[in-house]
Amino acid sequence: MYGAIEAGGTKFVCAVGTCLNDLTIVCFPTTTPGETLSKCFGFFDNYSKDLRAIGIGSFGPVDLNSESTSYGYITDTPKAGWSNTDFVGPFRQRYQVPIAFDTDVNAAAVGEFASGAAQGVENFIYITIGTGIGGGAMVNGQLVHGLVHTEMGHVFLVKHEQDTFSGSCPFHGDRCFEGLASGPAIEAHWHDRGENLEDDHIAWQIESDYIAKALINYTFCYSPEMIVLGGSISLRPGIIEQVRKAFLTYMGGYIKHDRLSLGIDQYIVLPGLKEQAGIYGALKLAEYKLKNNVDTK
Amino acid sequence: MYGAIEAGGTKFVCAVGTCLNDLTIVCFPTTTPGETLSKCFGFFDNYSKDLRAIGIGSFGPVDLNSESTSYGYITDTPKAGWSNTDFVGPFRQRYQVPIAFDTDVNAAAVGEFASGAAQGVENFIYITIGTGIGGGAMVNGQLVHGLVHTEMGHVFLVKHEQDTFSGSCPFHGDRCFEGLASGPAIEAHWHDRGENLEDDHIAWQIESDYIAKALINYTFCYSPEMIVLGGSISLRPGIIEQVRKAFLTYMGGYIKHDRLSLGIDQYIVLPGLKEQAGIYGALKLAEYKLKNNVDTK
Repeated sequence: MYGAIEAGGTKFVCAVGTCLNDLTIVCFPTTTPGETLSKCFGFFDNYSKDLRAIGIGSFGPVDLNSESTSYGYITDTPKAGWSNTDFVGPFRQRYQVPIAFDTDVNAAAVGEFASGAAQGVENFIYITIGTGIGGGAMVNGQLVHGLVHTEMGHVFLVKHEQDTFSGSCPFHGDRCFEGLASGPAIEAHWHDRGENLEDDHIAWQIESDYIAKALINYTFCYSPEMIVLGGSISLRPGIIEQVRKAFLTYMGGYIKHDRLSLGIDQYIVLPGLKEQAGIYGALKLAEYKLKNNVDTK
Repeated sequence: MYGAIEAGGTKFVCAVGTCLNDLTIVCFPTTTPGETLSKCFGFFDNYSKDLRAIGIGSFGPVDLNSESTSYGYITDTPKAGWSNTDFVGPFRQRYQVPIAFDTDVNAAAVGEFASGAAQGVENFIYITIGTGIGGGAMVNGQLVHGLVHTEMGHVFLVKHEQDTFSGSCPFHGDRCFEGLASGPAIEAHWHDRGENLEDDHIAWQIESDYIAKALINYTFCYSPEMIVLGGSISLRPGIIEQVRKAFLTYMGGYIKHDRLSLGIDQYIVLPGLKEQAGIYGALKLAEYKLKNNVDTK
């Protein structure tokens, strides 16, 4: 069987299993690295004789350069206590199996590609909009990495004309998507958590506007065949419909394709695996690592 | 030998040869499709017995879907007279050789990858800023296509605070990069052609600001190892230095990597092949097509 970790800034999900219908899953809050990794060990130790590989999808930034001395680390994260944490090393040492390591959003993209909404779609983007905002991309059936890894949540967006919020991104203030539209941004802006805001609150109109503008930029940059919209905010009833509508308005008929007009429901979609995309994708990363000795498909 | 066409909205470049140092090149203005393609035939007919494949890098939008009935066409272009022009068909019929077909910017990316500034760099972006603005991208050593093809020149940008221009993009006005910063946008804004504006004209400060903002978004979307900045505006002395400076300011130290700080000169670079990236890339596309029977590397 394979092991899998979906490491988020708020919670960790750990799983063992062989396929989507055969997962044993545990979940606990993200506290200090020492305490949190100990809880992971406490879970995986029960299966250590059967584990053949472990896949980790982690919040970032992370070092994915296998030639770097800090490969497998969470690097310069704003998450208190987690900067320069060796993530891969302790698991490799303890279990002596191959460890696959990638971003949480790339793992989720792999999950959706393997068995979700983007099954077999070789060029697509997975976006999560929740506590943080991020994206993973697949091109020609392979994950996009590059110099470091994508940071799609930080694309710069034009501010909504009715938005006077100063932004919550410590690096980009109100310039970037995450600073304007993440869960914490909504809460800081409206002095209440998103789940407490009514469906007709202007917050959701502004939120959908930002998501649509970001999707416009992803579309122009990648020409994806599909955009999968995950995360707690995307899953809120009514949001995706507002996003599709605003997206079509901004696109203005520029790119002629059925999926960018009447077929928009097949272009901007919800995750097929819902909340399981990340943990299942991490499991698939472990499988790929073992079979191909590569970190990603 | 191979044939190559770089089809621009202003001019066509045709070439035959086997390698970069052995190209016979002709160039003529883009007029009507009939007249312009006839001039291409007039050139290639001299070499028809020796041609083994032809590569075309074309202005767009183009249909690259090999299963589409309009594959190889320039589709819904604003360029007068060129909408729905079959580009590949006439060449395939006349010369009976494999024809590779892609966007002009993807061809230029291939040229820079083969023998230019991005030689061997498997994840990079080529941007051209001139009469039009566009980009081609390579991920894991392969060109990015997808639903249609990228349209990086149309990413939405935040307007410069001193810019009151209403924009020149027929689809997006002053919302997108091309509408704010292309050659025609500069001319419409300042009532003079760019080449007539002094180096200390505020136009260049605004221009560099827009280029930097676009490069920020490409960086967050792709995490490229390098961005090659081509086109007549990028090549203007002083521009690239201003772009690098503004880019670092906007990045705000968010992504920690030497190339995004002190090594910025190795991140935002000019094309190694200067104006020949497109035509040489088209030649390489022909070579790949013949050798692998695929349209792109």
